[in-house]
Amino acid sequence: MPRYAFKVDYNGAPFAGWQRQADQPSVQGAIEAALAKLEPETHTIAAAGRTDAGVHAWGQVAHVDLQRDWQPFRLSEALNYHLKPLPVAIVDCAQVSDEWHARFSAFERRYVFRLVTRRAPVTHDAGLVWHVRHDLDLAAMKAGAAQLLGRHDFTTFRSSICQANSPVRTLDALDITAHAYAQGTEFRFAVRARSFLHNQVRSFVGTLERVGAGSWTPDDVGAALRAQNRAACGPVCPPHGLYLESVGYQNDPFNHAA
Amino acid sequence: MPRYAFKVDYNGAPFAGWQRQADQPSVQGAIEAALAKLEPETHTIAAAGRTDAGVHAWGQVAHVDLQRDWQPFRLSEALNYHLKPLPVAIVDCAQVSDEWHARFSAFERRYVFRLVTRRAPVTHDAGLVWHVRHDLDLAAMKAGAAQLLGRHDFTTFRSSICQANSPVRTLDALDITAHAYAQGTEFRFAVRARSFLHNQVRSFVGTLERVGAGSWTPDDVGAALRAQNRAACGPVCPPHGLYLESVGYQNDPFNHAA
Repeated sequence: MPRYAFKVDYNGAPFAGWQRQADQPSVQGAIEAALAKLEPETHTIAAAGRTDAGVHAWGQVAHVDLQRDWQPFRLSEALNYHLKPLPVAIVDCAQVSDEWHARFSAFERRYVFRLVTRRAPVTHDAGLVWHVRHDLDLAAMKAGAAQLLGRHDFTTFRSSICQANSPVRTLDALDITAHAYAQGTEFRFAVRARSFLHNQVRSFVGTLERVGAGSWTPDDVGAALRAQNRAACGPVCPPHGLYLESVGYQNDPFNHAA
Repeated sequence: MPRYAFKVDYNGAPFAGWQRQADQPSVQGAIEAALAKLEPETHTIAAAGRTDAGVHAWGQVAHVDLQRDWQPFRLSEALNYHLKPLPVAIVDCAQVSDEWHARFSAFERRYVFRLVTRRAPVTHDAGLVWHVRHDLDLAAMKAGAAQLLGRHDFTTFRSSICQANSPVRTLDALDITAHAYAQGTEFRFAVRARSFLHNQVRSFVGTLERVGAGSWTPDDVGAALRAQNRAACGPVCPPHGLYLESVGYQNDPFNHAA
């Protein structure tokens, strides 16, 4: 059975998350239902990152085994046809070997969190950014973020229901940049690691927002990390500013030029 | 009665346009209803540009006369409170003289049209851009746009229901730029004039898209303009990529530094 990898872009708002659930809409369920229109068997797709309810993706990656040989571009077109009108798009598709796995072959995940500060409500970006009404201190947030880089026990920054065997992860990047936004500022938090714990990015951003607002010092972030205690974490921020930006593979199946 | 100017940001999707209508939601009606929560009289606000159904704004400007003296920042906060949860935000507010008028004091309007080309559907930007599945030739569109600059009879590019007395306008800018967009390209059409005819920008963009797609030549645009005949226009493009970006005033009431 030939195996296909997909790059998927979705707006997470109408979904209870990536993972298929019996009684709620999910991105996985939507794509599996579209696959069933092409080949009537039951399909189970595997993804690089199981995003939570409300979390978005620009570059989620998943794979599936199909019965027939499909020309990858035609396969993505057919899936997009059957996915309408849901806000899910197959933006790239490639045939891969039987050993290639969307989750286990990945060597890194990149997420971006979008936070907008301005007094007035957001309009066009409602549901696409976390909106905060007060100003934030970029330099203080950067100083706090620097304390999280590297290999640590991230117990403080993972959900109490996280199922990972170990709380130890290596955070390779947590870059914060400020961008012009009408009558306000957009802060982008760009994080990169081999893998993340459940709610790790939202725990980072919620804590760093407290630093930007001045109610935590940058050093408080390091102290919270060293506490290795979930109760030491700042508030977990909402999901709707979070985007799975891209997934890294040694042999990127979407690098069509290679 | 003190007069106040507002800068307004809105997502046009849920509205039948700016202008108040008896039986349909409008941006004007929404703001007038919020004003009635502050002062129970009937309020009529005047705007710089009456945007059509589905058209967005980043910087619409309107004014109103009120009974009480309001601190402008508090007035904008109170209006935003009463506008919730509609996608309309008062992003700036200033007290102005009785002679100042949002429409008649304006010396220019700037609009931006967002067009995204990619094979896959758009997800996060659904309703915020015009999505086209084929590539477009930027150089050809620029050459076509150049033929529209300056003072002309724009009968070809105005709606048959346009109520302006004269079809003559002066187009000061029509700049087209290409920007990276996931697995595609975003083209931005930035136009500037003292004023526009009804559907003029959407008639320009719909025609220039035909040039970009190769079915019209750039010179066909000039020939259509010279025809001074609505039937010579290309297809009018959809409203939901169009944004009223800003309105120019000699004494900008929002230039708080002045």
